[in-house]
Amino acid sequence: MIIDCHGHYTTSPVEHRAFREAQLARLEDASRPAPEPPAIADDAIRESVENNQLKVLRERGGDLMIFSPRASAMEHHVPDPDTARVWARVNNDLVHRVTELFPRHFAGVCQLPQTPGGSLADSVAELRRCVEELGFVGCNLNPDPSGGHWTSPPLTDPYWFPLYEAMVELDVPAMIHVSTSCNPAFHTLGAHYLNADTSAFMQLVQDDLFDRFPTLRLVIPHGGGAVPYHWGRYRGLAVRMGRPDPATLVGTNVFFDTCVYHQPGIDLLCRVVGADGLLFASEMLGAVRGENPETGSGWDDTKRYLDAAGLSGEDRHRIFEGNARRVYPRLNARLTEEGR
Amino acid sequence: MIIDCHGHYTTSPVEHRAFREAQLARLEDASRPAPEPPAIADDAIRESVENNQLKVLRERGGDLMIFSPRASAMEHHVPDPDTARVWARVNNDLVHRVTELFPRHFAGVCQLPQTPGGSLADSVAELRRCVEELGFVGCNLNPDPSGGHWTSPPLTDPYWFPLYEAMVELDVPAMIHVSTSCNPAFHTLGAHYLNADTSAFMQLVQDDLFDRFPTLRLVIPHGGGAVPYHWGRYRGLAVRMGRPDPATLVGTNVFFDTCVYHQPGIDLLCRVVGADGLLFASEMLGAVRGENPETGSGWDDTKRYLDAAGLSGEDRHRIFEGNARRVYPRLNARLTEEGR
Repeated sequence: MIIDCHGHYTTSPVEHRAFREAQLARLEDASRPAPEPPAIADDAIRESVENNQLKVLRERGGDLMIFSPRASAMEHHVPDPDTARVWARVNNDLVHRVTELFPRHFAGVCQLPQTPGGSLADSVAELRRCVEELGFVGCNLNPDPSGGHWTSPPLTDPYWFPLYEAMVELDVPAMIHVSTSCNPAFHTLGAHYLNADTSAFMQLVQDDLFDRFPTLRLVIPHGGGAVPYHWGRYRGLAVRMGRPDPATLVGTNVFFDTCVYHQPGIDLLCRVVGADGLLFASEMLGAVRGENPETGSGWDDTKRYLDAAGLSGEDRHRIFEGNARRVYPRLNARLTEEGR
Repeated sequence: MIIDCHGHYTTSPVEHRAFREAQLARLEDASRPAPEPPAIADDAIRESVENNQLKVLRERGGDLMIFSPRASAMEHHVPDPDTARVWARVNNDLVHRVTELFPRHFAGVCQLPQTPGGSLADSVAELRRCVEELGFVGCNLNPDPSGGHWTSPPLTDPYWFPLYEAMVELDVPAMIHVSTSCNPAFHTLGAHYLNADTSAFMQLVQDDLFDRFPTLRLVIPHGGGAVPYHWGRYRGLAVRMGRPDPATLVGTNVFFDTCVYHQPGIDLLCRVVGADGLLFASEMLGAVRGENPETGSGWDDTKRYLDAAGLSGEDRHRIFEGNARRVYPRLNARLTEEGR
């Protein structure tokens, strides 16, 4: 089967976005009433997915998508913890409904109610709720809740440990994924996302985080940012710094997804990073929609590039299915139970 | 001939670093006397270069290096304009001495006395001095003088225009190069440098800067950060945003250097970016020193990777020489005068 490990609910019904706007309006004017989560009909959710992510998944031959709230809309830069808690909960509940309506096609990954510099207690609680009550299989962890000002400590800092402890206990991974950029220097999709991937990986190279958390698993999206393209730089820097070869991280604790939107990029990724370290993903409908006029296929149709990458059958199996089952054991258990 | 467009004076004599320390000490304690630039003997300069950059340049078959002060030591985050002005001047004067001692092997590129949010008037004045009096052929422009806090506007903002006007008038390019990271989220060499390259390119995709400055030329180092690896992402984003294909920028106004330290990365760079957009560079002795134990050659011996990249003779000539002469016309004029 083919598992896409990186999809966001970027097509949620308008009422959902209106709720967020009401939340933000109330932060501006506390005299407004706290908005109620909207009543969204099953049909509206069904339509929003069937005509979008599910349609494209089917067209491209995919079976299941690991699905989370829209990344750019997490907006962790909004500092109010109550707002963050409710917004994460409402988002995760909506993703949960998608997974209930299409249980064979979607597995949930949750948004955490992070705030810049805020306690992670709410994030731990929401992770537990989503995994234990909603059957989610992972979370998205934002290394920069400030939205482009980078005011949080590196991912190797004890600040993050309460979350890692819960992830290890629940046996779920995190995808390292920032939200919208509030810094005009960084375009959200064309700079901030990739910079975060690059920065997170280097933070992990600099420290011994996985000595402390040997079973912690982190997925770095967008093909690892700049990292595989600069693999020699990272290997050379590691030697110079007296750190282990970065390759030792990959495939055990750190994984890259395949959201790289052209053939040469995917070819490089497969050439540099062993198949053990790669998880198939397209991030559709995400940053880059539409078709490449030269090929007539979607920019984000990453399966095509992988099909043309000359992979062995074994490597294909790992990238499209095996690694996802290994990194997301709760998904694997569910699939096994279903005889898939 | 072979021109390396990206070398820094990372091996300057100890007296030079001591001067900087005295400068910084005086900022802490204004009762100290203003330090005098150190008297450094020609022999000390000669030795520091002959046993390092020049030795490696010769060993690898290079002819000339475009040479600038150590990038990580520019330290534009120090906010005092007088300190910045003197530090840039002392650095540039030292690079000038290298170019006078080894005129066939080094051409100067200057550090600008930038400060976070400060006026660019001093930068324009120092650029003029370096080009008109010292024979320099370009400058390094830091898009984030704050050192990892990214408090400056994008490179397309009018804030930067006075510098671009001077560059256009003097017909010199800038390499977009940050300095040390003061933000623990960003490792200077393993994240901040690459993020800056990625962010700068995306800023240029978002705006029409080169309509206003059609002859402005910017070199984005480190193989363009994450950009060539994610070329499909940039092309797709540009379509979605109604912007011109990013390829239209490259080879006329924007150039990438070849500081990518492994064969697959260089292969991708050559496959994705036309030879018109690439300038040979190694950034030695720079971020990544030492040898790859698997190949026995230097990580930063980028000529080897280019030699193995299957380039046509014409493309090789462009990358190793022709583009540098086109992007740095003052260098070209000098070489032509010398019959080279």
